[in-house]
Amino acid sequence: MTRRFINELGENEALDQVFRVQSKRLRSNRNGNLYLQMDLADRTGAVNAMLWNANQQLNDSFESGDYLQVKGKTQFFSGSMQIIVSELEPVDAKTIDTADYFPLTSQKVDELLEKVRQILSGLSNPSLCQLAEAYLLDAQLVEKIQRAPAAMKNHHAYHGGLLEHIVSLLELVTRVAPHYDELDQDLLLMGAFLHDLAKVDELVYDTELGYSDEGELVGHLVMGVVTLEEKARQAAEPSGEPFPPVLLLRLKHMIVSHHGRLDYGSPKVPMTPEAIALHFLDDLDAKLQAFRQATAMDAGSNPGWTNYVPALGRKLYRTGVAGSGNEEAAQ
Amino acid sequence: MTRRFINELGENEALDQVFRVQSKRLRSNRNGNLYLQMDLADRTGAVNAMLWNANQQLNDSFESGDYLQVKGKTQFFSGSMQIIVSELEPVDAKTIDTADYFPLTSQKVDELLEKVRQILSGLSNPSLCQLAEAYLLDAQLVEKIQRAPAAMKNHHAYHGGLLEHIVSLLELVTRVAPHYDELDQDLLLMGAFLHDLAKVDELVYDTELGYSDEGELVGHLVMGVVTLEEKARQAAEPSGEPFPPVLLLRLKHMIVSHHGRLDYGSPKVPMTPEAIALHFLDDLDAKLQAFRQATAMDAGSNPGWTNYVPALGRKLYRTGVAGSGNEEAAQ
Amino acid sequence: MTRRFINELGENEALDQVFRVQSKRLRSNRNGNLYLQMDLADRTGAVNAMLWNANQQLNDSFESGDYLQVKGKTQFFSGSMQIIVSELEPVDAKTIDTADYFPLTSQKVDELLEKVRQILSGLSNPSLCQLAEAYLLDAQLVEKIQRAPAAMKNHHAYHGGLLEHIVSLLELVTRVAPHYDELDQDLLLMGAFLHDLAKVDELVYDTELGYSDEGELVGHLVMGVVTLEEKARQAAEPSGEPFPPVLLLRLKHMIVSHHGRLDYGSPKVPMTPEAIALHFLDDLDAKLQAFRQATAMDAGSNPGWTNYVPALGRKLYRTGVAGSGNEEAAQ
Amino acid sequence: MTRRFINELGENEALDQVFRVQSKRLRSNRNGNLYLQMDLADRTGAVNAMLWNANQQLNDSFESGDYLQVKGKTQFFSGSMQIIVSELEPVDAKTIDTADYFPLTSQKVDELLEKVRQILSGLSNPSLCQLAEAYLLDAQLVEKIQRAPAAMKNHHAYHGGLLEHIVSLLELVTRVAPHYDELDQDLLLMGAFLHDLAKVDELVYDTELGYSDEGELVGHLVMGVVTLEEKARQAAEPSGEPFPPVLLLRLKHMIVSHHGRLDYGSPKVPMTPEAIALHFLDDLDAKLQAFRQATAMDAGSNPGWTNYVPALGRKLYRTGVAGSGNEEAAQ
Amino acid sequence: MTRRFINELGENEALDQVFRVQSKRLRSNRNGNLYLQMDLADRTGAVNAMLWNANQQLNDSFESGDYLQVKGKTQFFSGSMQIIVSELEPVDAKTIDTADYFPLTSQKVDELLEKVRQILSGLSNPSLCQLAEAYLLDAQLVEKIQRAPAAMKNHHAYHGGLLEHIVSLLELVTRVAPHYDELDQDLLLMGAFLHDLAKVDELVYDTELGYSDEGELVGHLVMGVVTLEEKARQAAEPSGEPFPPVLLLRLKHMIVSHHGRLDYGSPKVPMTPEAIALHFLDDLDAKLQAFRQATAMDAGSNPGWTNYVPALGRKLYRTGVAGSGNEEAAQ
Amino acid sequence: MTRRFINELGENEALDQVFRVQSKRLRSNRNGNLYLQMDLADRTGAVNAMLWNANQQLNDSFESGDYLQVKGKTQFFSGSMQIIVSELEPVDAKTIDTADYFPLTSQKVDELLEKVRQILSGLSNPSLCQLAEAYLLDAQLVEKIQRAPAAMKNHHAYHGGLLEHIVSLLELVTRVAPHYDELDQDLLLMGAFLHDLAKVDELVYDTELGYSDEGELVGHLVMGVVTLEEKARQAAEPSGEPFPPVLLLRLKHMIVSHHGRLDYGSPKVPMTPEAIALHFLDDLDAKLQAFRQATAMDAGSNPGWTNYVPALGRKLYRTGVAGSGNEEAAQ
Repeated sequence: MTRRFINELGENEALDQVFRVQSKRLRSNRNGNLYLQMDLADRTGAVNAMLWNANQQLNDSFESGDYLQVKGKTQFFSGSMQIIVSELEPVDAKTIDTADYFPLTSQKVDELLEKVRQILSGLSNPSLCQLAEAYLLDAQLVEKIQRAPAAMKNHHAYHGGLLEHIVSLLELVTRVAPHYDELDQDLLLMGAFLHDLAKVDELVYDTELGYSDEGELVGHLVMGVVTLEEKARQAAEPSGEPFPPVLLLRLKHMIVSHHGRLDYGSPKVPMTPEAIALHFLDDLDAKLQAFRQATAMDAGSNPGWTNYVPALGRKLYRTGVAGSGNEEAAQ
Repeated sequence: MTRRFINELGENEALDQVFRVQSKRLRSNRNGNLYLQMDLADRTGAVNAMLWNANQQLNDSFESGDYLQVKGKTQFFSGSMQIIVSELEPVDAKTIDTADYFPLTSQKVDELLEKVRQILSGLSNPSLCQLAEAYLLDAQLVEKIQRAPAAMKNHHAYHGGLLEHIVSLLELVTRVAPHYDELDQDLLLMGAFLHDLAKVDELVYDTELGYSDEGELVGHLVMGVVTLEEKARQAAEPSGEPFPPVLLLRLKHMIVSHHGRLDYGSPKVPMTPEAIALHFLDDLDAKLQAFRQATAMDAGSNPGWTNYVPALGRKLYRTGVAGSGNEEAAQ
Repeated sequence: MTRRFINELGENEALDQVFRVQSKRLRSNRNGNLYLQMDLADRTGAVNAMLWNANQQLNDSFESGDYLQVKGKTQFFSGSMQIIVSELEPVDAKTIDTADYFPLTSQKVDELLEKVRQILSGLSNPSLCQLAEAYLLDAQLVEKIQRAPAAMKNHHAYHGGLLEHIVSLLELVTRVAPHYDELDQDLLLMGAFLHDLAKVDELVYDTELGYSDEGELVGHLVMGVVTLEEKARQAAEPSGEPFPPVLLLRLKHMIVSHHGRLDYGSPKVPMTPEAIALHFLDDLDAKLQAFRQATAMDAGSNPGWTNYVPALGRKLYRTGVAGSGNEEAAQ
Repeated sequence: MTRRFINELGENEALDQVFRVQSKRLRSNRNGNLYLQMDLADRTGAVNAMLWNANQQLNDSFESGDYLQVKGKTQFFSGSMQIIVSELEPVDAKTIDTADYFPLTSQKVDELLEKVRQILSGLSNPSLCQLAEAYLLDAQLVEKIQRAPAAMKNHHAYHGGLLEHIVSLLELVTRVAPHYDELDQDLLLMGAFLHDLAKVDELVYDTELGYSDEGELVGHLVMGVVTLEEKARQAAEPSGEPFPPVLLLRLKHMIVSHHGRLDYGSPKVPMTPEAIALHFLDDLDAKLQAFRQATAMDAGSNPGWTNYVPALGRKLYRTGVAGSGNEEAAQ
Repeated sequence: MTRRFINELGENEALDQVFRVQSKRLRSNRNGNLYLQMDLADRTGAVNAMLWNANQQLNDSFESGDYLQVKGKTQFFSGSMQIIVSELEPVDAKTIDTADYFPLTSQKVDELLEKVRQILSGLSNPSLCQLAEAYLLDAQLVEKIQRAPAAMKNHHAYHGGLLEHIVSLLELVTRVAPHYDELDQDLLLMGAFLHDLAKVDELVYDTELGYSDEGELVGHLVMGVVTLEEKARQAAEPSGEPFPPVLLLRLKHMIVSHHGRLDYGSPKVPMTPEAIALHFLDDLDAKLQAFRQATAMDAGSNPGWTNYVPALGRKLYRTGVAGSGNEEAAQ
Repeated sequence: MTRRFINELGENEALDQVFRVQSKRLRSNRNGNLYLQMDLADRTGAVNAMLWNANQQLNDSFESGDYLQVKGKTQFFSGSMQIIVSELEPVDAKTIDTADYFPLTSQKVDELLEKVRQILSGLSNPSLCQLAEAYLLDAQLVEKIQRAPAAMKNHHAYHGGLLEHIVSLLELVTRVAPHYDELDQDLLLMGAFLHDLAKVDELVYDTELGYSDEGELVGHLVMGVVTLEEKARQAAEPSGEPFPPVLLLRLKHMIVSHHGRLDYGSPKVPMTPEAIALHFLDDLDAKLQAFRQATAMDAGSNPGWTNYVPALGRKLYRTGVAGSGNEEAAQ
């Protein structure tokens, strides 16, 4: 039997197939009975699942990240798809094709990383080139980039999501920068690479997704500037000259201002052309990704609209996705 | 003697050359004495000018739009360049090369209009194609497009400015849309064409720049939807079929939501991918143009920073324009 | 047995009587069991009802709008009255007096519509008179006015509610306008008639109450201006003269500005006396109606206060309704 | 020669007539020279006036409140009418008809006060009747009511202005209250009388208009509640019973909530029908009065629009005042 | 068996011990079954408790304020500790040491009150001294002060909490005032005593915690000024002189402005040094108390962080409490 | 003749004495004439001064920081004291007692610095002690601390002002911290020392006061964290152990959160007790200093109130300073 992927699930389907456990919690209901609440994932998304009348032993029989053979039934609950699990059993990862269970295959992640290397190695500004190298030679950082999500929810909230967002933004920059004389493409590319990079340490994502203490208390904007200071020193060491100070200043400014407004957590508003452009292009990429995700995942409920998307503060008009405008007009 | 263009003027220069009168007012000072306050323009910008001890007769000797031979001296006042005029005399437009006196030559305006026609005629969606035609066959509208500014101040605030903004945005769309599967390029191009088009009637620009009564009381977002309704009817007439209603709805939505937030005057926030993209790309284009203008015009005062730009709520770091980042790094 | 009306229901009452089904949904609980959730209505209001252990067949046995004989018991849940239904059975509408099941009887709706016709036919401004006629001769529009609610929730959220709100506002205008020389009563009456009229197409109310796609994406302010443009053209046709443009402009302004603030969705703030008055009187009428509804409906819980009313962002002090101030003072 | 009233003044008129001095200041310009800046008033308004090269002696020759024979010339300055005074001479008040110099004649003020007495003596609630009497028997308060303005600027900012606002609001209440069953007319009338009454002590208006220290530090909302507490005690004394506590509470609530929002200085939002109505009707009356004043006073500059009115945060479309809508349409 | 205090409770503990009933409600679940929801308290805090399948008779067998022998089991539910009660039985208060059941023992409350008397009797300003006496001689007020909480939730939300907050603030003032020459310590102490005092009548706390009608409709800031007016009159009576008016004004200002911002419910912002200091010190004391409470109560869930604290709009980093910074550093 | 200090100056005084030039600009008026605008200072404050009909030569005859013998006359202009200078002549600094010309004498600055050293050397936490040493051994930093102002305007806006603010805050911490068990005094002292320290590089103050490019584009919060990272590394070097990470995190958090709100430029809100306390105490100290300065400087105009203080968004009630409350009451 071929697999039913999560974004294809309809209401009231009986299931008997493998999922990856993205997270799990053993909880009490109000009566004090235990149940198991899980997020089960495959490469097309994640779905909430409940197993009633669970116990500690069952909960201890597997970990987040494991694979489970799951028997159950789908249903709609509060406007979202859900699986009521009747049986589950751990499965050996070797017996399955794990590529089916991650939004990004490890091959895809490798390609994305290669893409970053390629774009940044093409920078014509030698200082920026050395700076990029200082980052990309940091094996620990590179390892984290490959795994970090871009956000807790909504946009690119999965392993590799940060990398995917960075690559999309780098490519967008190569399209947009040549259109404006006042944009220094090298600088803007470097800003696109750096703006969210400290998310590798702001978030924790080894098991369940969350914020690190430093992420909560300091945040990726300030953390990013601290790291930049260190990498700029490393980048400049071979030459014996300090890293060009105005260039460093403009990079720091892009990082701290990229949220665009004080009340969105940027201590400074964008005041250079590259900082202005970075803010808008980053926001555009994030919002379109959130759109893509919202429209892809809750396919079943309302043909015209997604559910309310908290991160965007609105619901979205779905009809656009399938290009219905054109098709309708073309008939 | 070669002309000193406005963006080249330094402090304390003696001048004796021709300017175009962009606006003029005869005013009283607190003592009741009359003086003439003018905005004098050439193709690089406009500069405030004062002639003290003026009188009604002098004021009546020329109109806004005329050319004047001006004798005077430049000075800095409140952080802006100003001309203290000692003598002025009307000049026949035929004796000068008027191309020196407009940001956009009429040839440039023709090219921009041609660019719009070319891009819109390339739309693959036949309904949108017919709609574009309905707009571009409206001679009165086309005449206004060629003259309308894009704003009262800041971005593209000069004749032809609206057209320039539209073309820049159309070209930007052709760069960005292919990067995102969820964007319907035709729809986004049409939105870019339409979003500000009602500014041709929101603003008045025959003599001095200002708002029309309808501009103040209704605004270009709502005016644009009213016109779209009419043009869609015209576009659909030949076929006997109504204009595709979902397509029309999505166009209207792009127009009303393009300011992005309710408190910025959009009665709806963007809820389709094209409306989201239009908002960000429009804002990006407008803000970079405002940057360009702010940095170009007050070249003399502070080497690092522009004056505070009210429309952006900030001052801008000028060093970026000349690519100093790169140059510094490259040495 | 005489009927217990919904606004008379107390806690723990056993019921066996007919209700009109206002809406219904078959839902799963977390365990995957189906239940039926309904809003049951009569002329005094609506009440949430639950039938546990439902199934598809039961759900298919009736439609929204049908009448049901309902057996069950009332209870308080989360501060609201609710009916736990044990049995239900469809009832033929012919066997009951349907006037008991709608807030407004069809006779009352007819009277309200007649009232609108009467007030608008009394306008002394001939252009406005013709304009009113253009609206009232539109049979499709008139049919919708008779059915449309004034809002999704809170104020006048029931069939005929829009008409009731319009009539209340028209009558309020005839009381207030003579008090102020600067108010043009005809203009203000027309504004009161038009300001929310596009709600007939912004909302859908054939079965369950909701927003139309155009309502979500464009909104009744802009939709109202588009319709006004068309009706003004029709009104002016017989005379061969265009509709007086300043008059049209002032009407459009009243429509777009009647929410009073940009962040409440008006793209323009009120700038004419009539627009200012319309905003305040509309808000007064809506808020007092919301008060009436909030105090009428949850009579049982707290003698002094209503529940928190989300649309008003506050709870309301109920003691006022029965005029206790006076009574207390008079004793 | 007949008097030119202030609201009739055009540009460049030579004047030689009497004005009342509303305020005056002897000031230095930047060069250290003294000049006299005055607000000169008659019954139609006030106009700024400057006398250059003044001295201490001239300044000491008259007081605010005196009448001056003024020679000078009108001019426009910064968009407002202004008088450049060449000569001035004090005039004995007995030689002129002072009714020409106050917006409200003392006869008119007497009538307004009588109107208040009449409306409040008609209250059917005996407690409120006694309370009104407690206020109106307070001779010091009544004296102040006759003189107090309703605001520092914009609406009713002249002696008697508070009384005028109160009467307008009382009359408006008698029109509106019968329209709504949930409004207790007596209570709302009393609220209309009390809501701004503490302005008699919040403002100072013996010479120049300003705030008292208590006005600045405590404000008329809280001051009004303190006075109400005292008057309610007095009103109840004869009966030996305390003033009905719920009635008192509802009156206090109307006073503290009448600005409608916390950020407008109301520590509570309106939560009773009368408090809701008072807020909207008060705001309506104040804004229409501000409109009337703005359109009356700067008649000369722009035919269609007033200047920007800071208190309203907008400019106003003047064409409405003269009923141009109707007239245009009626032709 | 020694008592397990509430702040020591872990997950899954079996309990059989006495609690004080802080509040209780008999409720229906969605199925119409009754359950009993209680807040059970001891001196370390309060915990939510549920008894399923309750009935009216059980509910009537005890009151809020009674003591119950409770059998049950703890569990985590929605991130908070909860007790699932299997059995309960009323217990005679005489058989237990009630000091275990209140955050503040009555002895502690007496000490706090004595502390207030001592600090205020030490005021060197005789008028303030007499004023303090007028308050402290009011037996009814003093009785309420001993019982009133300082807030509905979060900071000092228990009987005696208001007194505790006042004493903490008075002591803080004696530490801070000497540091600043511009602070009048007597005035600031009196402000600290008065600022929240009207909470004794704004809140109701005889059984369940809530707002009085006057608390909702008028609020403790305005109520406090009304009482101050009366107490100042009483304080001044013996001397035959009125209470010094500027002093009274400054006290009133401290009361009305102590929330610091209009949108936080203060009709005036602080404009004197003492009002500025009172606002910051009050806020500091309240927020640190909220921190203390949040970190003390939910000890079990996350070692590093408290749950989200709605009143603070954030969660709190717990590690600070145990001084981990120092300890870590000192090792 | 004894010197008239700036805070003693009355209107219309003739002056002939020495001032320090704090800043100067040669400017054109609207007519193109040159004048010299200066801020002249002594130890009690600064005052604006104008010399009309200046020229380049006069302007070149002295620098900011020089001392001038000034002849002129005081006047009020726009509510502020001003000097109209008729003559000026440079004076040799050796001939005067420079202590009269700085708010803080260099001896006072030495004492303040010594106070910092003393308080920080008393920290019992060894890591924090070493960290403080790392800062205080940085000679370049210490030199800047002695000169840096605490702000561009308002609070501590003069050389040494930053140091004065730090010392006041450190002393305030030693008073407040012992009052709260949850405050770690060492940590809070270190936070008080560090929170604004990067102002030494955010501002420029060698000649005229202003922002550095890094101050504008990155800001002192982020700059402070970058420096802390470096100093913590230095502090930990001798031990061979890294600086305790949680301690470092808590220090960083205090720096980034000390503005208290996102819209005030803090990318994080305070989430530890020390960060909460630092925010309130810092704000209290800054606002009281602003009060002190506002009331000290414009002594002449209004006896009861200062001018509007833009940084506080209000004017201040002056009567408090001289303790009038007490005095009045004590009479």
